[in-house]
Amino acid sequence: MKMKKFINNPENLTQELLEGMAAAYPEKIRLEEGKIVVRANPKSADKVALITLGGSGHEPALSGFVGLGMLDASVVGDIFAAPNAVSLLAALRKFKREAGILLIVLNHAGDVMSANMAVKMAEREGIKLRTLLVCDDISAGLDAPMSDRRGLAGCIPVIKVAGAAAESGAGIDEVYEIAERFSRRVATLAVAMRGCTHPQNGLPISELADDEMEIGMGQHGEGGGGRGKILSADDTAKAMFENLAKALCLKAGDKVFAILNGVGATTPMELSIVFRAVTKLAAERGAEVVGGIIDEILTVQEMAGFQMILCVVDDEILKLLRAKSDAPYWTCIG
Amino acid sequence: MKMKKFINNPENLTQELLEGMAAAYPEKIRLEEGKIVVRANPKSADKVALITLGGSGHEPALSGFVGLGMLDASVVGDIFAAPNAVSLLAALRKFKREAGILLIVLNHAGDVMSANMAVKMAEREGIKLRTLLVCDDISAGLDAPMSDRRGLAGCIPVIKVAGAAAESGAGIDEVYEIAERFSRRVATLAVAMRGCTHPQNGLPISELADDEMEIGMGQHGEGGGGRGKILSADDTAKAMFENLAKALCLKAGDKVFAILNGVGATTPMELSIVFRAVTKLAAERGAEVVGGIIDEILTVQEMAGFQMILCVVDDEILKLLRAKSDAPYWTCIG
Repeated sequence: MKMKKFINNPENLTQELLEGMAAAYPEKIRLEEGKIVVRANPKSADKVALITLGGSGHEPALSGFVGLGMLDASVVGDIFAAPNAVSLLAALRKFKREAGILLIVLNHAGDVMSANMAVKMAEREGIKLRTLLVCDDISAGLDAPMSDRRGLAGCIPVIKVAGAAAESGAGIDEVYEIAERFSRRVATLAVAMRGCTHPQNGLPISELADDEMEIGMGQHGEGGGGRGKILSADDTAKAMFENLAKALCLKAGDKVFAILNGVGATTPMELSIVFRAVTKLAAERGAEVVGGIIDEILTVQEMAGFQMILCVVDDEILKLLRAKSDAPYWTCIG
Repeated sequence: MKMKKFINNPENLTQELLEGMAAAYPEKIRLEEGKIVVRANPKSADKVALITLGGSGHEPALSGFVGLGMLDASVVGDIFAAPNAVSLLAALRKFKREAGILLIVLNHAGDVMSANMAVKMAEREGIKLRTLLVCDDISAGLDAPMSDRRGLAGCIPVIKVAGAAAESGAGIDEVYEIAERFSRRVATLAVAMRGCTHPQNGLPISELADDEMEIGMGQHGEGGGGRGKILSADDTAKAMFENLAKALCLKAGDKVFAILNGVGATTPMELSIVFRAVTKLAAERGAEVVGGIIDEILTVQEMAGFQMILCVVDDEILKLLRAKSDAPYWTCIG
């Protein structure tokens, strides 16, 4: 059976997809050697640069958020694989500046290892940088150490907030602190109903029975502990929201920015229905959903499922979330 | 076997999804009675209003493009079903104005029937309007009469161009003429690899064998005549591009704005790979892809496939495509 994907040689997936993405948005992004996506209109050198890294296969993901007010560079690995330290170091060198670099790393073993190696080498070269680890996934349990929490699509609002602060001219310590403080108010939980196919070999990366779903499944089919029978949209939303609210110590009066990230085959129709439930669940606790995003911002091939991301926000954070960005996949918030 | 979708009562899908979408974008859109989505910040009454109608289940589709510089109202029908003439007439009444209304109708029998009835009633009431029929699908063949061509996601760039013209203060005849002329330079072809499930009864709306794809399949599983074995991304792109180029009489020196609309389970990874092929195919003919969109703008549930939309543009059209819009699902073009 032939894999049901529109691809050419599986070996060239990453290079070809990056060339295509750059071709679609020539006034916004450029693809440089070493699979580094950068802004077509670079930020002035007196501002803090934002760099991140991650595997491909999750588009639009990180490279889709390169642009004014968000990332300066995304260093891209192969399908579901971290880029190596050499590529990341090349990007860090390219953006070496007095103002410094904020390196944003999603908490996955491969990304963390490449980042640690590149950071050590960069520091020996006098490159000024700070590293922010994003670990928004709460599926490991509320008592799990932060190091056990994976980085999921909650990285995108964190990047937006950090990027807006950097664009406004904040110094490296200030950008780091705003982003780090906000990242502790961001929590994510994923759910899957149907697994997906690895686009390089056509094999399933996870399997679920016809009547099953799994809350907590990670971005690569990692187990999440919450396997069970399929629930309605409202009941799924409730199960996820309650855990997220607990993780965030959500209380009456809190303002919530909610993101429902479709990971592949789950429709905006379904995500909208779940969003409706989230607003009601927040209201029941006296909290208010002040807005959000219903979209595919970080996908897992054609997996059916989504990530629910809750961000507790204040006026300062909302202003940064609403600040202008021209990144290809950021739609400005009203 | 339970349907693998996050829904509640299938009878309430449309109402619930619209409530959810409105809740996510409270500063941009509002849901009014009769399933009419309108701008949260209405356009001033001296400008031409843009209204459209269509069934749901295709989100973000039409309602996702309500906002400054695009639609003033989207009248929403049930899943895969046109709204009735009474709802559309209510929307036309709401936006009655001296400047007039441009009603954009996708060429599907149900939408056309509701539109014709509502327009007759509206004209009797002295509502000033013009109707633009979008029939961008070329799958019926190049010799087929325009009336046999379905309206696909090519409606979105047409709405963008018309909306930007209306926002700039152009009169109803001018808005109509710009949009009508542009619509003749927009051609779309769809391809599907895997069918989808009707979200109200759980039944497949189309079926394809494990090694098959179909070029020309419509937004509701309608046959397109191009069923065959699965091709590579490059070969699929070539087969589709050549027909589109013929339909548009594409010639050396032409500028092309290309949209690859994922209809459900096909990933941005694949769409990017296909986009790369489109830029090469255009270049081989001496035409230039000046930019585009790789995104899900009009979906068909979890169908695997996409629509390739080619728009031949000039500087005036590019300016209108790049004009500001705050619609929830329009990402500004550089």
